[in-house]
Amino acid sequence: MSEKPWGGRFESPTNEFVEAFNASIDVDARMYGEDIAGSRAHARMLCQQGILSSEDLDAILRGLDQVSAEIERGDLEFTIALEDVHMNIESRLTAIIGDAGKRLHTARSRNDQVATDTRLYLRTRTDTMIAYIRKLQGVLVTLAEEHAATIMPGFTHLQTAQPVTLGHHLLAYVEMFERDAGRFLDARKRMNQCPLGSAALAGTTFAIDRNMTAAELGFDAPTRNSLDGVSDRDFIIELLAAASVCAVHLSRLAEELILWMSAQFHFIDLPDAFCTGSSIMPQKKNPDMPELVRGKAGRIIGGLVAMLITVKGLPLAYNKDMQEDKTAIFDAFDNLQGSLRVFGDMLPGMRVNVEALHQAASSGFATATDLADALVRAGVPFRDAHEIVGKSVGYCIKADIELHQMDAAACQQIDPRLTAEMVGALSVEACVAARNHIGGTAPDQVMAQVALWKTALENNHA
Amino acid sequence: MSEKPWGGRFESPTNEFVEAFNASIDVDARMYGEDIAGSRAHARMLCQQGILSSEDLDAILRGLDQVSAEIERGDLEFTIALEDVHMNIESRLTAIIGDAGKRLHTARSRNDQVATDTRLYLRTRTDTMIAYIRKLQGVLVTLAEEHAATIMPGFTHLQTAQPVTLGHHLLAYVEMFERDAGRFLDARKRMNQCPLGSAALAGTTFAIDRNMTAAELGFDAPTRNSLDGVSDRDFIIELLAAASVCAVHLSRLAEELILWMSAQFHFIDLPDAFCTGSSIMPQKKNPDMPELVRGKAGRIIGGLVAMLITVKGLPLAYNKDMQEDKTAIFDAFDNLQGSLRVFGDMLPGMRVNVEALHQAASSGFATATDLADALVRAGVPFRDAHEIVGKSVGYCIKADIELHQMDAAACQQIDPRLTAEMVGALSVEACVAARNHIGGTAPDQVMAQVALWKTALENNHA
Amino acid sequence: MSEKPWGGRFESPTNEFVEAFNASIDVDARMYGEDIAGSRAHARMLCQQGILSSEDLDAILRGLDQVSAEIERGDLEFTIALEDVHMNIESRLTAIIGDAGKRLHTARSRNDQVATDTRLYLRTRTDTMIAYIRKLQGVLVTLAEEHAATIMPGFTHLQTAQPVTLGHHLLAYVEMFERDAGRFLDARKRMNQCPLGSAALAGTTFAIDRNMTAAELGFDAPTRNSLDGVSDRDFIIELLAAASVCAVHLSRLAEELILWMSAQFHFIDLPDAFCTGSSIMPQKKNPDMPELVRGKAGRIIGGLVAMLITVKGLPLAYNKDMQEDKTAIFDAFDNLQGSLRVFGDMLPGMRVNVEALHQAASSGFATATDLADALVRAGVPFRDAHEIVGKSVGYCIKADIELHQMDAAACQQIDPRLTAEMVGALSVEACVAARNHIGGTAPDQVMAQVALWKTALENNHA
Amino acid sequence: MSEKPWGGRFESPTNEFVEAFNASIDVDARMYGEDIAGSRAHARMLCQQGILSSEDLDAILRGLDQVSAEIERGDLEFTIALEDVHMNIESRLTAIIGDAGKRLHTARSRNDQVATDTRLYLRTRTDTMIAYIRKLQGVLVTLAEEHAATIMPGFTHLQTAQPVTLGHHLLAYVEMFERDAGRFLDARKRMNQCPLGSAALAGTTFAIDRNMTAAELGFDAPTRNSLDGVSDRDFIIELLAAASVCAVHLSRLAEELILWMSAQFHFIDLPDAFCTGSSIMPQKKNPDMPELVRGKAGRIIGGLVAMLITVKGLPLAYNKDMQEDKTAIFDAFDNLQGSLRVFGDMLPGMRVNVEALHQAASSGFATATDLADALVRAGVPFRDAHEIVGKSVGYCIKADIELHQMDAAACQQIDPRLTAEMVGALSVEACVAARNHIGGTAPDQVMAQVALWKTALENNHA
Repeated sequence: MSEKPWGGRFESPTNEFVEAFNASIDVDARMYGEDIAGSRAHARMLCQQGILSSEDLDAILRGLDQVSAEIERGDLEFTIALEDVHMNIESRLTAIIGDAGKRLHTARSRNDQVATDTRLYLRTRTDTMIAYIRKLQGVLVTLAEEHAATIMPGFTHLQTAQPVTLGHHLLAYVEMFERDAGRFLDARKRMNQCPLGSAALAGTTFAIDRNMTAAELGFDAPTRNSLDGVSDRDFIIELLAAASVCAVHLSRLAEELILWMSAQFHFIDLPDAFCTGSSIMPQKKNPDMPELVRGKAGRIIGGLVAMLITVKGLPLAYNKDMQEDKTAIFDAFDNLQGSLRVFGDMLPGMRVNVEALHQAASSGFATATDLADALVRAGVPFRDAHEIVGKSVGYCIKADIELHQMDAAACQQIDPRLTAEMVGALSVEACVAARNHIGGTAPDQVMAQVALWKTALENNHA
Repeated sequence: MSEKPWGGRFESPTNEFVEAFNASIDVDARMYGEDIAGSRAHARMLCQQGILSSEDLDAILRGLDQVSAEIERGDLEFTIALEDVHMNIESRLTAIIGDAGKRLHTARSRNDQVATDTRLYLRTRTDTMIAYIRKLQGVLVTLAEEHAATIMPGFTHLQTAQPVTLGHHLLAYVEMFERDAGRFLDARKRMNQCPLGSAALAGTTFAIDRNMTAAELGFDAPTRNSLDGVSDRDFIIELLAAASVCAVHLSRLAEELILWMSAQFHFIDLPDAFCTGSSIMPQKKNPDMPELVRGKAGRIIGGLVAMLITVKGLPLAYNKDMQEDKTAIFDAFDNLQGSLRVFGDMLPGMRVNVEALHQAASSGFATATDLADALVRAGVPFRDAHEIVGKSVGYCIKADIELHQMDAAACQQIDPRLTAEMVGALSVEACVAARNHIGGTAPDQVMAQVALWKTALENNHA
Repeated sequence: MSEKPWGGRFESPTNEFVEAFNASIDVDARMYGEDIAGSRAHARMLCQQGILSSEDLDAILRGLDQVSAEIERGDLEFTIALEDVHMNIESRLTAIIGDAGKRLHTARSRNDQVATDTRLYLRTRTDTMIAYIRKLQGVLVTLAEEHAATIMPGFTHLQTAQPVTLGHHLLAYVEMFERDAGRFLDARKRMNQCPLGSAALAGTTFAIDRNMTAAELGFDAPTRNSLDGVSDRDFIIELLAAASVCAVHLSRLAEELILWMSAQFHFIDLPDAFCTGSSIMPQKKNPDMPELVRGKAGRIIGGLVAMLITVKGLPLAYNKDMQEDKTAIFDAFDNLQGSLRVFGDMLPGMRVNVEALHQAASSGFATATDLADALVRAGVPFRDAHEIVGKSVGYCIKADIELHQMDAAACQQIDPRLTAEMVGALSVEACVAARNHIGGTAPDQVMAQVALWKTALENNHA
Repeated sequence: MSEKPWGGRFESPTNEFVEAFNASIDVDARMYGEDIAGSRAHARMLCQQGILSSEDLDAILRGLDQVSAEIERGDLEFTIALEDVHMNIESRLTAIIGDAGKRLHTARSRNDQVATDTRLYLRTRTDTMIAYIRKLQGVLVTLAEEHAATIMPGFTHLQTAQPVTLGHHLLAYVEMFERDAGRFLDARKRMNQCPLGSAALAGTTFAIDRNMTAAELGFDAPTRNSLDGVSDRDFIIELLAAASVCAVHLSRLAEELILWMSAQFHFIDLPDAFCTGSSIMPQKKNPDMPELVRGKAGRIIGGLVAMLITVKGLPLAYNKDMQEDKTAIFDAFDNLQGSLRVFGDMLPGMRVNVEALHQAASSGFATATDLADALVRAGVPFRDAHEIVGKSVGYCIKADIELHQMDAAACQQIDPRLTAEMVGALSVEACVAARNHIGGTAPDQVMAQVALWKTALENNHA
């Protein structure tokens, strides 16, 4: 009984399987650095407030240094009998420094301790995640610059719609990842409040200084309500939601890379170092990385769902169910970070088949909208112009020609307002060049956007 | 064929069941006001840019006024043959004003049109949602003020933990809803970019002024990439995520209200007007509203999942799958708004059983932590103090008394450092009063928080 | 107060918005037929057991006939003040026949009533769903027969892997839908137990005959535990899970149809009647139906998630949260049924581009595995054979030829065991013909499977 | 390059991080036994069919024995460079026995190999899961027998509804778990088809005997379509769905145990060995196990969602995304099995507070329905009886008495048809005894059900 930090009122020992099922040390061990940092700040505050002697403080700080070093060296074996990272560290500390170690937990509880550790840990991970997002954006911007004038078919419904530039297409993803970064930053802002001092749920009877610990740990402020401080898992859900949307963006890009690398599209080739082969089919070169990244989206969303379900309907304040939070968010962050990293490393090596892209854009009547626009400029109401071009396309399909190959007779037969000059002016180059307004696909617009992004990303890194 | 706005190249009519299955008019009809507002802005811009004559503009504006009035009066019957709200309105407009109506769709597509309508509609709905959140926060703050000194048991693991004040408990929810409002505001900020002018996917060949339409419709700016403009559904997912977390908060409050109204807890009574009875059991008074609100959380989260799934893996740009977006978000918003409204209306009528709360707080050894703290103040290391109190609780359970009823002999028997004075000083009033630091449960802290919230909420409403 | 069937102990009327928010009549009205059938059976049983007089029974049966007729004719307007379909019908019945109507609810509760109605309703819907699955299977089998020898590239990782027959490919979906049908049948079996007689939660004090009502309503047996009878929603979750997997299968087929109809694949063309065009791009013919069906998968899975969340953590027995069940399952069934129907109607009109399929299969080294197998037959260990062919493919890529075009010199240069005869024997026809074992892609196997399926489906329809 | 089993056509080595990100060995290592069993069966079949010499077969079987022993002893270190369990084993085998090892992969692919391994592994795990369900059912039946006549309040909406017996209440869960077992059995049945021989996707050119391998590995039959055989993950989704519903049932029971162990309900006490204490509050005894089990439901459902998302929209046949399947199902099975085990071990030690249950059932007007039934027996229509009792309850609440304490005058004042005899006959014992029909809560019915379950469970174990 005496081994457990709470054994006092218990008469029989914990069931062995329960001990293992209940323990979180396998999952929370990775937060040891944050746990020790939190304990340091807490001890310093207790001492400043006269709750802990300076001798005890010295012992604690020295002891924590030793514990930290032991963990780093792999000399401290964590045990499930001590349940979690907090008790493993405190127990070792007390073994080293004696009674002072038993004083460290004054005016705090594991409830506020784990909430503080988790926020600290995820704050660092969030910063790293944003850095990976920025890196991937940079890679995409560089590619967009290179392909500002590379023409490809723009798709809707996976049908050829209008010609676009590859640079424009890639910049669409830069926009998505920018929103992702924004969501992570907003979540970080809301998360960066310090729950330490909430104690078990109601605060403590000791005259603590929560502003001091909050400041020392780099938080913007202490949380304002102790019950909320220990039972709030919004920050985990919000990070999971941000991660889920980001994973969905990656999965969209992944889907396109997979399509583009198929023999049928033949738009790109991914570097060997990011593909694998088949154990049975010697010719295969598979886009494993995009597929795996696409698959990770399901897992990350699954984690979001898990946490929403877990918290839903729980009364205040802490409930054990919440222990599941770390599994979900750690798994999601590990997998999202890996996905961002792989794409950031892989895309610079992508080979673009510029010719195939151009050829694909040149067929499939991608210039039809521009022909309708030309009719509108000649005074035809848009809806009528649309109908005239629709008939022209029907004609061309039967004749197995493209729009610009229609002769004057064919034009007149369809509608007297349609001229050979109009169809003759159609080209994919003209198409993209003409969409030269904010957000349009014209090479000029792409280059303007590239310039803006370069500045923005430099500022972010500064 | 001619009925459809895109019938030109088609040779056989749409299958009848497909027409119904494909149509979105049942869902998107509610956006008619935004659709008309968007058309007005678009037409004005086209005219300013010399793409539309001022006569046509006048006709369009006049015609849209008439269409709007017809819809308001219920005189315009929408038809699934015209698929969606956009085509129903444009078709009626053209019927009224002729050729000018056919010119309205110049330089735009349904792809950017629906994206614009949806953002406009959800912007208004988001503002309303935040207002409902603020209202509920105000109700909770008023209750918290009233119950700043009402003592109740604070729970962790649904076991009596420490006494807290009801005011403090209610303010925990005010914190949660504050974060919810923050998430809705952040989502609104990211959403408030105007996709109009993205056209189908690549922009348009006409010299449009996207800044003008964006400003006229109250957007912060035009979106920066046309492909992203038409295929981005982040704003819907982000709103669904914000709604899901808010629904989870409501479900936690709901769970507590249901528990508290059980015969066993007997902490509160909800007003008759918000309860229902049983068709078979004449004595029943059921907390239907909290239960229903708790149940809505599942549905709202289900909508979030649906949208993440739908967008996951879709190549750029628009795909028909995305049509499902409105069903999910409209359903979630309707149900969340209803939940917030019901709670805001119901809680002022809640009767609190102050005596039962106090009694519950006074049993169950809720003051045990304070006894440990008293030992710590007397120099006992916290971990030892914890163990001594643990044994005291064990003693009391067997003796069927509370801690403050232990006599000196009993104290000494357990540990010489434990005194009758210490146990005699224990009271739930002293417990809550002592937790008088930022975020603590002391009545003074509650009143200080109430004051801050009142100012904050007034500023929000101003 | 008196309007509500449970108003007796209530002192103030229901809040108006609550009345609307709480009501389920909009959703459950569609079960009126089942509700009336259940009431008939219940009344007959009450009479047989001497609890109801035969005069009252006659009045009730006659009254229910009239109510049913009024509903069919659209003459009975349901009102939210009466909450649900049960009370709307009973209230109308009492208005028609007086006191006998008030006796109908003896020995039952809305809790067992709604559980019975829902099972009856979903039983019918499940049977219909299975019929739609069978119809779609039949369509696929017919297509498979037609294309038993049509050669196409088989893909893994969306890379050309080995040639397969289109018939074989389509039969893979027949397998999937067979498992779906099996899951629906298993769910139906578990669902087909009658909860009527469970009353509110504990059974009733009247001497009811549950076997009689169960038999009359076509159930296999009465449920065995009244608490479970009223609080069990497994059948809804299980049907939603079955629907989700089926929707996932449809979405996989949808994805392929969309890919195949792209200009790049050009494998198929879908009939005009199942496609739509664009309001701006006159040339577009979009595969709306596959896209919409793919999108529906998200919605259906969302419904499953919603129900799992809703039931999770609910104590026994009935809780109001459960009212959300019908929205989820009705929406899922409507959308899944529509999806199955659309695919069943659309696929017979699909035009297959047999030549394009053959050509795609003939490039991309799809025969590489067969070359490795040839080496194995000549005594080379498989792993070595794999390596030799891998090198051959590398050689061919550089030489821009296919494997069968390698000459003897090239073969020898790569490995002395590789012969020109081996590469010369390679053909996609030989490839598919050689895979002539159970489950293999050979035309003979496809025809054998088609024969089996035809018999099986005929038996199912019989 | 040469290390990879597919390196032949690749020119640059795999990126290091990709190697780790891509590898599945951490997850699939646990299937080594199934992988070896599958290889044994495959080799025997190859030999029987004359594809492998009997010397090679002997070498392979001997080599596999050695590999198996090395793994069991922990002597074989798996490496991520070899990606997965299949290649790690085959590589070691070839190191031991040479060329014969390279022949083992003839006529198969990792695609059918992993599908076979996973089905074999999950078949065993499913059988174990069902055994844990049966064990928990047995525990509940034993408790139900003990408490066949223990009276407690039955709840709907968490409000006292009618008295029930605890035995009846517990048997409701036995019903739920019975359906769970049924779902696992149905999933097992559908899963038990052998994909081995599907090879990569199309079958193989070797004359394999799929019936032989299927039989040797205990499958009911070979799968009927090779494309489906390698791309089907239905069995994983179906098992996850079955696990999710079972987890939801456990979470409902968990919720009740947590409520019942609260100070307010005070219905039960859970054994110390299954509870933990608090690091700060010495008096706490927390129901950690029910809370943790309730929390696991979210995680298990999250896994289901992850898999549905992952498979949704994937074209045939194998895609790398599918590699995520094992993480989801293994995690779900580990956690569900742990939950079932913990509950099965914990519940026999639960202390039931029989007196508190009886007292709770005796207050709160739980007998009101029976009073209405008495009025009905005296000829009052049910709806009128309901209203009379509703008024009686209102009267009693004001008078602060229970229904059976009403005197004759009070009865008459409310309604002349209400008699003192009727209210005098009310007792919770009479209430439960009267519900003596199939599925009713009467002790006799509970004992009858207990007897049936005992027989059924014995037969299952036999």
